[in-house]
Amino acid sequence: MTFEEKKREYAKLLVNAGLSIRKGQKLYLTCPLEVADFAKLVIKEAYLAGASNVIVKWVDDEIARMKYDYAPIEVFENFPEWEALEKNTLAKDDTAFMRIVGEDPEALKGVDANKIKAGQKAAYVALRDYYKLQSTMGFKWNVSAVPSKAWASKVFPDIDVDEAVSRLWEAVFGTVRIGEGDSVKLWMDHAAKLKEKYTILNNWQLKELHYKNSLGTDFTVGLVENHRWEGGADKDPVDGRPFFANMPTEEVFTMPHRLKAEGVLCSSLPLCYEGDLIEDFKLVFKNGEVVDYDAKKGKDQLKLLLEGDEGSRHLGECALVPFDSPVAKQGILFLETLFDENAACHFALGNCYETNLIGGPEMSEEELIAHGGNISLNHVDFMVGTKDLEITGITKDGEQVTVFKNGTWAF
Amino acid sequence: MTFEEKKREYAKLLVNAGLSIRKGQKLYLTCPLEVADFAKLVIKEAYLAGASNVIVKWVDDEIARMKYDYAPIEVFENFPEWEALEKNTLAKDDTAFMRIVGEDPEALKGVDANKIKAGQKAAYVALRDYYKLQSTMGFKWNVSAVPSKAWASKVFPDIDVDEAVSRLWEAVFGTVRIGEGDSVKLWMDHAAKLKEKYTILNNWQLKELHYKNSLGTDFTVGLVENHRWEGGADKDPVDGRPFFANMPTEEVFTMPHRLKAEGVLCSSLPLCYEGDLIEDFKLVFKNGEVVDYDAKKGKDQLKLLLEGDEGSRHLGECALVPFDSPVAKQGILFLETLFDENAACHFALGNCYETNLIGGPEMSEEELIAHGGNISLNHVDFMVGTKDLEITGITKDGEQVTVFKNGTWAF
Repeated sequence: MTFEEKKREYAKLLVNAGLSIRKGQKLYLTCPLEVADFAKLVIKEAYLAGASNVIVKWVDDEIARMKYDYAPIEVFENFPEWEALEKNTLAKDDTAFMRIVGEDPEALKGVDANKIKAGQKAAYVALRDYYKLQSTMGFKWNVSAVPSKAWASKVFPDIDVDEAVSRLWEAVFGTVRIGEGDSVKLWMDHAAKLKEKYTILNNWQLKELHYKNSLGTDFTVGLVENHRWEGGADKDPVDGRPFFANMPTEEVFTMPHRLKAEGVLCSSLPLCYEGDLIEDFKLVFKNGEVVDYDAKKGKDQLKLLLEGDEGSRHLGECALVPFDSPVAKQGILFLETLFDENAACHFALGNCYETNLIGGPEMSEEELIAHGGNISLNHVDFMVGTKDLEITGITKDGEQVTVFKNGTWAF
Repeated sequence: MTFEEKKREYAKLLVNAGLSIRKGQKLYLTCPLEVADFAKLVIKEAYLAGASNVIVKWVDDEIARMKYDYAPIEVFENFPEWEALEKNTLAKDDTAFMRIVGEDPEALKGVDANKIKAGQKAAYVALRDYYKLQSTMGFKWNVSAVPSKAWASKVFPDIDVDEAVSRLWEAVFGTVRIGEGDSVKLWMDHAAKLKEKYTILNNWQLKELHYKNSLGTDFTVGLVENHRWEGGADKDPVDGRPFFANMPTEEVFTMPHRLKAEGVLCSSLPLCYEGDLIEDFKLVFKNGEVVDYDAKKGKDQLKLLLEGDEGSRHLGECALVPFDSPVAKQGILFLETLFDENAACHFALGNCYETNLIGGPEMSEEELIAHGGNISLNHVDFMVGTKDLEITGITKDGEQVTVFKNGTWAF
């Protein structure tokens, strides 16, 4: 396949597997200006798949940055009511949402954190209906990435920018199984394999997981009762056909109990948080809460994350990923969670996913918390998986089962 | 000035003279994706001028075209309520609106006219508050142009596209007085000169104008009683400072009486209507209405225009422009009304401007019509001015005054 053919195949994959666009359905596409040419391929494929309308919301790092630098905080505190009306209405009206990421991972470096927080908080309130439906898969959504120059130069700082963009494109293609045949079929096979794993885990209903590796991780996390492991495809709420909220996705994940985490977790990959890298860090947990932490680089940024709100110091997601996943095999740090979280086992600090608890989507916040779920404005993944990671599960009867051995699935 | 300096000067001109952005004011910018780099210059200048927020609405010919080609007509019939809420709200809330045009003049060629009409009609209803304030200068707005590749290749079909874009940029700079010194000051001087002309015309309160030239034009148009000639700058509704709704603008214009037009008007420049060129056409008027017409090229398109609605067969604007204006001096057909209308005397078929009648903005549609105003979904300018055009005015007392001689102002 030529480069142009791969791009077209990728656009088709996003439309026909990522979102499984149906005839008459609307597509809401959020995309960086810089990759408008790729967006046009997606738009074309969406119409060919029968979309009745494609609504595009363009984003741009430089313009966003100017706003952060010059606009007063009131602008961030007041989420536009029309934008809320648009997204909340479309979310309830058979619209699929696609977001293409891939801009500068350091775009927000040095921005007034109060403005960022104010914007997030205002969006959280204004888009409550939208977020609620998103977190419960009440509509189809998909996040994927397309290389920008700024992103590629950060991933490959030592080579020419155009060459860096080409290499990052090839890496992205590798992670999403483009160039290996019919990509839609490959994704359906992939989803079936992930389903095998989470079905076994769901039947086990493990009480807790022990993590141990040579980095220094020695950690136990408790899972909520009636947790659900998920991974790969979700189901179209209308016709049940599969869609993929993330592309790539290699993880099988569930809900940790917010008050049950003990011991030391060591990072295995750097974490890019609001434009700054946090490297070689460790978190010490007691009763589910981070009570101590350290980092060789970016400790202040780690502090900022942990002090975001109370829920930012508790876990919201526990995810299993083999050390040799197609993402890990690219052998690069993507500096973008969408990829890096699929290169290694990880946890998230912050908000949990309601769908990881049976009955969760129908619960109030209070009920969710009572069941061990975590609530936060943050949801930040950090990687802990290594080639020598061992994960042992403890069943309700106290028996041990090996979940991960030598960094990958033991079953 | 280098090319980059000229672009920056142009961005400054649009922000500081075109819209006279005040501290704390919002800017709503509509801009083609292709010229995002120029938009960023404008956004930066707007923030430097004190704008509190810049909201950008991106447009793109190819994406719009895909929508016309694939989306069902219902999509065009239903104007999104959030978009109406946004524009209607912002229009009442101290926002200045800038629109950058300059895409492919033939972008809509071959599109289903019913979809275009449906979209225009839906917008007209949904954005009534916005349009009402726009037509009465209740908020500041500005339309300018930036060359796209498609536009430049149509203007200069025989040269390389990059060279065409450069040449069109230089032509645009020439029309907006960039590269001749302090452009904001040049525009204030220009506005003062246009004011001299329309002040004299307003004092005369001519009953009618006779047009005659060697193309075959022999035409009389009646002006409404208490008409106002306008041109150049309008006034910020808050602080009275000048702004320019169009850049370039060379015209002084007023309201013809919808029932008072007699004789033959011959076009002096081609007219680009919804992507198709209408060339060498003439219109025959009786009692204000087009009763006959012909065109060497594009007669079907002319028919479509005239049959748009009843108001499309009557005049809504009468504008005077010297044959040697800075736009005309570029010696090219811009294929974009914003420019071509400033190269020659012209009329518009369709909707009138309420501000061209004393008390007009406060009138109902019925009152406006009773005073001779014209109502239509269309407002299409067509050029009639030539180097040998003579325009004679008739005062209420029946005296003759020479308005234009040898294609330019006689006073």
